[in-house]
Amino acid sequence: MADEPRWLDPSERRTWLAWVFSTRLLWEEFERDLQQQAGIPYGYYEILVMLSETPDRSRRMSELADATQSSRSRLSHAVARLEALGWVRRDSCPTDRRGALAVLTDEGFAALEATAPHHVESVRNHLFDQLTPAQIASLGEISDALLEHLLPLASSRGDYRTRLLEEAWAQLDGAIS
Amino acid sequence: MADEPRWLDPSERRTWLAWVFSTRLLWEEFERDLQQQAGIPYGYYEILVMLSETPDRSRRMSELADATQSSRSRLSHAVARLEALGWVRRDSCPTDRRGALAVLTDEGFAALEATAPHHVESVRNHLFDQLTPAQIASLGEISDALLEHLLPLASSRGDYRTRLLEEAWAQLDGAIS
Repeated sequence: MADEPRWLDPSERRTWLAWVFSTRLLWEEFERDLQQQAGIPYGYYEILVMLSETPDRSRRMSELADATQSSRSRLSHAVARLEALGWVRRDSCPTDRRGALAVLTDEGFAALEATAPHHVESVRNHLFDQLTPAQIASLGEISDALLEHLLPLASSRGDYRTRLLEEAWAQLDGAIS
Repeated sequence: MADEPRWLDPSERRTWLAWVFSTRLLWEEFERDLQQQAGIPYGYYEILVMLSETPDRSRRMSELADATQSSRSRLSHAVARLEALGWVRRDSCPTDRRGALAVLTDEGFAALEATAPHHVESVRNHLFDQLTPAQIASLGEISDALLEHLLPLASSRGDYRTRLLEEAWAQLDGAIS
């Protein structure tokens, strides 16, 4: 660092701390609500959602690990827990002998359907209901501006999630227009 | 849930996804930058910062665990790693025989001083530089509105961090006015 550091001024520091604490506390509320409602951590819920979004309700384990930014062993542990609940089963991949698949069971889909209304209520309660329509619009614009910077960075590292997000975007933009 | 779930409409869903991805990717960039610059995870950096903020550069281990939302074993592991680097040492608490203290060493303070300019550059690069002044102001207001809802929730559960945040706020408001 040759130049003088661009320290945050008090107002910027306050914004930074408020952002750090609010995003962290939000995640904790979502986690807490999900644990109470479905008895699973947020990461498990995301696995169920990702499986439910494919036509055959299955994804490769390696794909899930990339998408959830988990190590293989961590993902294996999560899927083993979901298997014990009867919500996911493992299968071998028909096109690749070495590729293990995770498949959402009917029980898993039912559990997801039962949990989703509570989760959306949690998101509304802790995020959307706390903001004015103008603030919600602004939060969307701010998040978009940040993603314009962040997605190319992640993408340049071959991050699989960026493709998933682009897919989700395409679907949503189709639904909006 | 007696009533019909308040599902997100496509525009709200887009805002939600953009918020989820942007906050997550931001944390990952801060983590990645810190690993490259100081070779430590963000959680360790926060421990160093918290220790540096007290007059005697020390805090109880139990206080650190609460403040960083870590389990005792996780915090012990982090402090052991920082001890191995020579940045923190453990001490016994003078007022409570059972209370172990973590103390920031001179080497740890120097490491923090060397890392802080890089960290602030990371925060500017990935967050502040990507937003217009109006968006930064709006992000501050949004974060404040969320904290007004979230802090009482965390506080009602006896969450120690809320006190730390209130202290930080008081200092900042003093600095601004």
